[in-house]
Amino acid sequence: MEKNRRNFIKSAAVCTALASVGSYSLMAADATKKAEKKSGNKSVKLNLSFQEGTGIGSTLTEKLDYMEKLGIVGLEPGGGNLAARINEFDQALRGRSIHISAICAGFQGFLLAEDPAVRKQCMDTMKEILAAAGELKSKGVILVPGFNGQKPALPHTQETRNFLIEELTELGKFALQHKTTLILEPLNRGEAFYLRQVGDAASICRDANCEGLKCMGDFWHMTKEEVSDRGAFLSAGSAYLQHVHIASRKRRSMPGEDGEADNYIDGFNALKELNYQHYVSFECGSVGDKNVTVPAAVKLIREQWEKA
Amino acid sequence: MEKNRRNFIKSAAVCTALASVGSYSLMAADATKKAEKKSGNKSVKLNLSFQEGTGIGSTLTEKLDYMEKLGIVGLEPGGGNLAARINEFDQALRGRSIHISAICAGFQGFLLAEDPAVRKQCMDTMKEILAAAGELKSKGVILVPGFNGQKPALPHTQETRNFLIEELTELGKFALQHKTTLILEPLNRGEAFYLRQVGDAASICRDANCEGLKCMGDFWHMTKEEVSDRGAFLSAGSAYLQHVHIASRKRRSMPGEDGEADNYIDGFNALKELNYQHYVSFECGSVGDKNVTVPAAVKLIREQWEKA
Repeated sequence: MEKNRRNFIKSAAVCTALASVGSYSLMAADATKKAEKKSGNKSVKLNLSFQEGTGIGSTLTEKLDYMEKLGIVGLEPGGGNLAARINEFDQALRGRSIHISAICAGFQGFLLAEDPAVRKQCMDTMKEILAAAGELKSKGVILVPGFNGQKPALPHTQETRNFLIEELTELGKFALQHKTTLILEPLNRGEAFYLRQVGDAASICRDANCEGLKCMGDFWHMTKEEVSDRGAFLSAGSAYLQHVHIASRKRRSMPGEDGEADNYIDGFNALKELNYQHYVSFECGSVGDKNVTVPAAVKLIREQWEKA
Repeated sequence: MEKNRRNFIKSAAVCTALASVGSYSLMAADATKKAEKKSGNKSVKLNLSFQEGTGIGSTLTEKLDYMEKLGIVGLEPGGGNLAARINEFDQALRGRSIHISAICAGFQGFLLAEDPAVRKQCMDTMKEILAAAGELKSKGVILVPGFNGQKPALPHTQETRNFLIEELTELGKFALQHKTTLILEPLNRGEAFYLRQVGDAASICRDANCEGLKCMGDFWHMTKEEVSDRGAFLSAGSAYLQHVHIASRKRRSMPGEDGEADNYIDGFNALKELNYQHYVSFECGSVGDKNVTVPAAVKLIREQWEKA
């Protein structure tokens, strides 16, 4: 108990120190943002990222070779068994222009569980993943507070929100200590009713007021939950938006496979306005032959980024 | 029962017919929006509105005279006893440049009540107000689905959201029949946890897909719940944003009474981008002498609108 309290105090101190650095850098980012806004943001670089299963190749090395040929600069591995794979990633990425963009989930249990043991399981496994993510210099680790199927869950009340923010702050402070972040992901109602909008995730980040807690937007989920991609990203702002997922908008397939529905320009416009420096990462399958659909998707996204 | 079903079918038909007109006008609005965006939106007119208690005067006529001197073009009466006051408003507004901007609440019961009788009370009183609002050519009637103090309430689940959308659609169709709209208002957590963000209200409107259902943003509540005023308004968009409330940002007093906190430029920027044609309506008290604070607030808002 005493040890936990000391850890809490220690991590609170780390959070406060880094938060003040964060505020300063936010002011700088804000100035940049205003300058970018005037110039039309045409110069903001698009950093594309793949998950391990997105590209083509039977080994990690083959996959990374394939990604490099397409100019992909980020890799988003799953969080399962991450600690055991640090060496593997370190060696495979050595000398390449590809960095770890984010770690996708991989934790057990869930933070909104009624059962304290299930919540603890989530805390413990998330901390293992966050520590490994830090070693891999990942920008963050993605977390969903609770999926629809995870029951029994705490009711959707102000008290639960306050409690969730306590849990997220503990993880956010831990993330900061490991030089990474915790990234809240809103899903669509079919997967998780609790957190569905980017603006809601951002307001949780603001209330937590911990520099280690961030949020993201996923075009696939946003298609179902947001009236405006642009409004959603601007609602998070450069202070909180840390990662973006992309997929086709009807079947969560390769961007472009759903035809005209796969328009991301409105959202990209907001990312450029925010001078977004993080990654746009593929999280999707492919209906067609990946030898065709993957390069076509990369081309489409780059064209739309230019137009935004 | 049969009568209810016929009414439902009848109102559904009205909604569909008007919705298609609505879609067409949305397309036109969209084209205007794009044109405005290019030109910097500098030409968008600010329509200011007062509630009955905002200005100075002991009678409605005196209040309207005072408002006209300040160039206020909208009046937002409370919904209580509205039907009995139609003549009074009609006569007082005759020949003036002031129109009814919206009707503020005034209903009884609440839509999220567990008890069907309490829900019915809300439906019945809202319909009375909507009918009166239509006669007064009001742009809409403001509704909050449930305040924190209103209990027992349905749990915050997908099922409740679906049910609420059914109720809102019934009222939205009724509003359309009376040539007005139903306007959902998100509040801050201190007043209503259930609906707190403009983007959430807009997504309810989108899901309902009824042209008579709209939403609004209130700068006072937004101060506590939104990370970005601009992101919030853009998340609603011109399709759903029907009304705006304004107040000082620390004490819900006259804009300007809370000093530098009372900055609305970011939000106004979005309203101009959306080519917002509805009202910005005062809903606030005054700490200082209203003879000073009211004209000062109007001046401040106009200056910030110009800067946006």
